[in-house]
Amino acid sequence: MLPFEHRSQLRVRYGETDQMGVVWHGNYILYFEAARTEAMRACGGSYRELEEAGVMMPVVEVGVRYIRPAHYDDLLTIVVRIEDPPGARMTFTYNVLNEEGETLATGHTVLAFMDAATRRPCRPPNTLRRLFSRN
Amino acid sequence: MLPFEHRSQLRVRYGETDQMGVVWHGNYILYFEAARTEAMRACGGSYRELEEAGVMMPVVEVGVRYIRPAHYDDLLTIVVRIEDPPGARMTFTYNVLNEEGETLATGHTVLAFMDAATRRPCRPPNTLRRLFSRN
Amino acid sequence: MLPFEHRSQLRVRYGETDQMGVVWHGNYILYFEAARTEAMRACGGSYRELEEAGVMMPVVEVGVRYIRPAHYDDLLTIVVRIEDPPGARMTFTYNVLNEEGETLATGHTVLAFMDAATRRPCRPPNTLRRLFSRN
Amino acid sequence: MLPFEHRSQLRVRYGETDQMGVVWHGNYILYFEAARTEAMRACGGSYRELEEAGVMMPVVEVGVRYIRPAHYDDLLTIVVRIEDPPGARMTFTYNVLNEEGETLATGHTVLAFMDAATRRPCRPPNTLRRLFSRN
Repeated sequence: MLPFEHRSQLRVRYGETDQMGVVWHGNYILYFEAARTEAMRACGGSYRELEEAGVMMPVVEVGVRYIRPAHYDDLLTIVVRIEDPPGARMTFTYNVLNEEGETLATGHTVLAFMDAATRRPCRPPNTLRRLFSRN
Repeated sequence: MLPFEHRSQLRVRYGETDQMGVVWHGNYILYFEAARTEAMRACGGSYRELEEAGVMMPVVEVGVRYIRPAHYDDLLTIVVRIEDPPGARMTFTYNVLNEEGETLATGHTVLAFMDAATRRPCRPPNTLRRLFSRN
Repeated sequence: MLPFEHRSQLRVRYGETDQMGVVWHGNYILYFEAARTEAMRACGGSYRELEEAGVMMPVVEVGVRYIRPAHYDDLLTIVVRIEDPPGARMTFTYNVLNEEGETLATGHTVLAFMDAATRRPCRPPNTLRRLFSRN
Repeated sequence: MLPFEHRSQLRVRYGETDQMGVVWHGNYILYFEAARTEAMRACGGSYRELEEAGVMMPVVEVGVRYIRPAHYDDLLTIVVRIEDPPGARMTFTYNVLNEEGETLATGHTVLAFMDAATRRPCRPPNTLRRLFSRN
């Protein structure tokens, strides 16, 4: 049911920092992806099973805005939201929070649906469409 | 002198691919950064020297659009462009091309200027402002 | 008290796989590090606090043996063991298990102690020596 | 012809550093791999073509010793050596040098041969065996 929201947590790894002493900005993409995986698992639409069933979801767009830095060993909360039902594309938005609940970064990814065998665009699986419908 | 354009090349590493058999989408951020470093070096504004002089340029925004996949061992060309003089922020845009000259991805990053000691925003160094002025 | 053993779990991220369809071998170093951080926190010797107190532990040696592949979305258990009290160096060994309890990889890291200010070798902090003594 | 030696260069990326202000130790595995790819290409045994021909070379062991740190923007030289003809396994050793020719790290990787279709061990392709024979 939409809108759908899910929260998961992760701990910043040392190797994810850079010499500025904060999380290297590119690693938020990893965090978004981990949170997206958890969000899809939580609502019964495991991405792993999707791929095993022959549907891949390549990322076609990503964007991040950085507000406050994250540091090594921080416990981050990633809030994932899905507002719209999956069509040719599916959009996830993210909010990265620290332990004080402050927003460190926001972002979004847009994914497409691709037949793993033909590598051609395909329609979203019915399972996903049922999970993320308006009512 | 603006607009400024610079091209550099890099070879896709095996560890940069994912199980879709293509470059993992987050790694384009690494490519943008490598190309930005080369672009700044080429025009005499080495980012390394900037940091050694006490100015850091944290990334405040990044965006990528993925058009065609890149593969292991591909030789990619990254075109970096700077259109506007550095103010409170500085924007770089990117075009990632394969060996056939096809665009694989486009993107941009917006960076701020920060005093390394105080971690407070600061003005862009004069060296950079002279390098990237309108005439 | 030695020997010390600690277990933690992590979920394989998509971006950690490579085009062989398994976890890229270099990413086990990230897993070892995450598990080492958790092990040190669990016994009261937080690495973050260690660095904040001015002691860094650069890695001087790492080794991994790969036995079975790990896959995207696998829930891995990392067993960390410390056998010997910290001296000029400190050695951690690792065992990476899948959900069936099979060993996927084993490894070790050797770390030194370094004064963060002078970047010179230093003795292990007393806190660590007390935590990891023979009795 | 053995022993075989090859040198290639790479520039350290910002995202490859960590908050210690040096290259994060796990990233040497990326460097070894990039250098191995170049070494194999240079002698006519492109790893990409090997995989396209149905043979994969999973890493079964890796080891690194860290001597001096590498820094952002350093131009590193990686010396790859092959001493022994490929059998069930194939070993590469590495020497990472800075611009002054000092050794920053040494390491090795052991790779196996695997049939990409069956995922079973296989013999090294004849092309590779001819390239890396004793005389």
